[in-house]
Amino acid sequence: MSSKIAVIGYGVVGSGTVELFEMNKAQIEENIGRQVDLKYILDLKDFPDSPYADRMIKDFNIILNDPEIEVVAEVVGGATFAYNYTKALLESGKSVVTSNKELVARKGAELLKIAREHSCNYLFEASVGGGIPIIRPIYRCLAGNKIEEIAGILNGTTNFILTKMIREQMSFEEALKLAQQNGYAEADPTADVEGIDACRKICILGSLAYGKNIDPDKIHCSGISKITMEDVEYADVAGYVIKLIGVVKDTEDGKISAMVSPRFVDKKHMLSHVDDVYNAICVKGNGVGDTVFYGRGAGKLPTASAVVGDIVDALKHQGTNIGFNWADSDEDILLPRAEEESSVYVRVKGEDAESMKSAFSSMFGKLIFLERAGRPDNELAFITPKMKESEIDANLTILSHTVSIESKIRIL
Amino acid sequence: MSSKIAVIGYGVVGSGTVELFEMNKAQIEENIGRQVDLKYILDLKDFPDSPYADRMIKDFNIILNDPEIEVVAEVVGGATFAYNYTKALLESGKSVVTSNKELVARKGAELLKIAREHSCNYLFEASVGGGIPIIRPIYRCLAGNKIEEIAGILNGTTNFILTKMIREQMSFEEALKLAQQNGYAEADPTADVEGIDACRKICILGSLAYGKNIDPDKIHCSGISKITMEDVEYADVAGYVIKLIGVVKDTEDGKISAMVSPRFVDKKHMLSHVDDVYNAICVKGNGVGDTVFYGRGAGKLPTASAVVGDIVDALKHQGTNIGFNWADSDEDILLPRAEEESSVYVRVKGEDAESMKSAFSSMFGKLIFLERAGRPDNELAFITPKMKESEIDANLTILSHTVSIESKIRIL
Repeated sequence: MSSKIAVIGYGVVGSGTVELFEMNKAQIEENIGRQVDLKYILDLKDFPDSPYADRMIKDFNIILNDPEIEVVAEVVGGATFAYNYTKALLESGKSVVTSNKELVARKGAELLKIAREHSCNYLFEASVGGGIPIIRPIYRCLAGNKIEEIAGILNGTTNFILTKMIREQMSFEEALKLAQQNGYAEADPTADVEGIDACRKICILGSLAYGKNIDPDKIHCSGISKITMEDVEYADVAGYVIKLIGVVKDTEDGKISAMVSPRFVDKKHMLSHVDDVYNAICVKGNGVGDTVFYGRGAGKLPTASAVVGDIVDALKHQGTNIGFNWADSDEDILLPRAEEESSVYVRVKGEDAESMKSAFSSMFGKLIFLERAGRPDNELAFITPKMKESEIDANLTILSHTVSIESKIRIL
Repeated sequence: MSSKIAVIGYGVVGSGTVELFEMNKAQIEENIGRQVDLKYILDLKDFPDSPYADRMIKDFNIILNDPEIEVVAEVVGGATFAYNYTKALLESGKSVVTSNKELVARKGAELLKIAREHSCNYLFEASVGGGIPIIRPIYRCLAGNKIEEIAGILNGTTNFILTKMIREQMSFEEALKLAQQNGYAEADPTADVEGIDACRKICILGSLAYGKNIDPDKIHCSGISKITMEDVEYADVAGYVIKLIGVVKDTEDGKISAMVSPRFVDKKHMLSHVDDVYNAICVKGNGVGDTVFYGRGAGKLPTASAVVGDIVDALKHQGTNIGFNWADSDEDILLPRAEEESSVYVRVKGEDAESMKSAFSSMFGKLIFLERAGRPDNELAFITPKMKESEIDANLTILSHTVSIESKIRIL
């Protein structure tokens, strides 16, 4: 008995998937207990010099209509072609595995439902955290827990930039340029730098953990392009590092709080030690307590590792749906940002620090004032008590009449 | 449709399993898609005041002969009763999940074979790393990788003791006493302190990763009882912390290298940040690179988290064997310790440091000499180049004629 698979998209992740599958083929077959062959690679480009040139095709229908194909890796990306392909494949009972976070975040609930109805599987371990095992651990290993909170460094590009700012005192612009030179950032870095990529990923994790669809367009998302060296220095002296963190948790009244934003992370927290392009996700369960999953969040072979892992799982569950409970939801499940409780770091410029200190303390209550070497007397930085974001916003609006608000960063 | 489960053993892990299962029952049932009830708790002791007193039984045959029981959690521990129970249950087609690392390390291959033959499952996520998802991530999520190396802090008791020695300058004896007062160490701490517990765990991980049985009695295992404050200080100044590390990896000639011993861990390595009773396991795959899994390695609810996660998985795979390839092996698969290549820290006492320096350098080649505040002139500490352990041993034997060898600790 032999199983056939196909790969759609021969870009970075696609070619990595083929490479890793062929490299570890013997072990994979021993694991599954039967022969497995890569039958087709679909890509619109030509690859005449590829060792797999004989399997390259351009017509999707060849895969769709081949009854031998059991599992397809969709690594095209985007939410148009990929959506149509995935839907058609699942409807024909073929399992699909993917690294496509955009499609999973937008259409996960719908595609999982189709997979359920056709006794096949839609798996997407590679869509969050690259090679880091995180989807299956949350959904399977921690199935005995209520998930209380997930907080993660979910984007390697921004973590690389912040690491350079923190460890080597580079400015944001210099660090971004270096990331682009190293191939870690796109020419247009917006999706990474403004947190859009991390936002999709935290929505996928939250949707899985809470079983309800969390729409990436509906949650608060801010990036790192406004972080300055002054902020990095204040954080350092106070015992923190600045990281871009996606957080999702459920609240006592049944709402879900989800957000992507830069955060002050205590140097004692495991996430503070996650540097360069690495990712890490901290999952807190009501039984297990805190767990952390760390590894390469992107890259050719790390992402391929997750795709091939899903291919193996799909082949082992051929004909049976594994079952994720991620339901579409129209109801209003999200906690509005104004209702979030946060403690925030604020940096302002205005009159002399001493007079600002007393004015702000009377407004916020007990503040923690921060220092940095060479702080000018017209600059003040402080951490507020934990309070509703609506209150913080209101206070900052009042402040902005007399001082210039330079930075506002939440504390994790 | 409703499923029935049973728990054997109502000690710390058993009562935690019952508590967590009942606490999260609604969510677990939604995940599995049917009602699940805890029907029996087997324990020889009486618990008349327990809320589950009506389900307490003392006769194992009631569970064995009840056709309604699909999954049994064996949390008795030990390798005698637990072995007989597990074997009988699997032979009758009931799945067994367990936290029993001793039994899994000794009889894993045999029990997995019985499970395969009877289309049920033997799952043991809780046997390594307490609540940390590690068995399923290695075996399932990283199935597309050849595992190159696993290195982990696998015992919470010793990590607590070492943390107190490193962070609070306690002696080993003081730190052990504190661990006992906190309930982290047994009255007889041998199994933890001498690395026996960690040894079972690294053998389980290695057996899974390489598909061949690694016998805990056949690998080198040394504990932390001889670590001194001097060693801790030399490590600190040189940029290391001392941790008890289990390592398993495969070698180029097809042998498996496995060992438990204290190690100097570079402060830049993620494992160096793992403190107190926490555990962490670093898994390196040929696709994914380095991944780290971190969390509570022991304790009532964390361990129960893994047991309940396995109950859920067993119920979802009722009637189908998930299939671990962990074969019994009589062949000589282990690399002898003398053949291992290591770089080691050595601390000696003898004549004046300068004359020792030149004598040892001519013997070992290029040494890195270490310093600590208040080093007496008759003490010398150094790190050797990477060389065969047989050569290191031979050199140390010669040295021992002229100096006293106080410590020898491998570098990770």
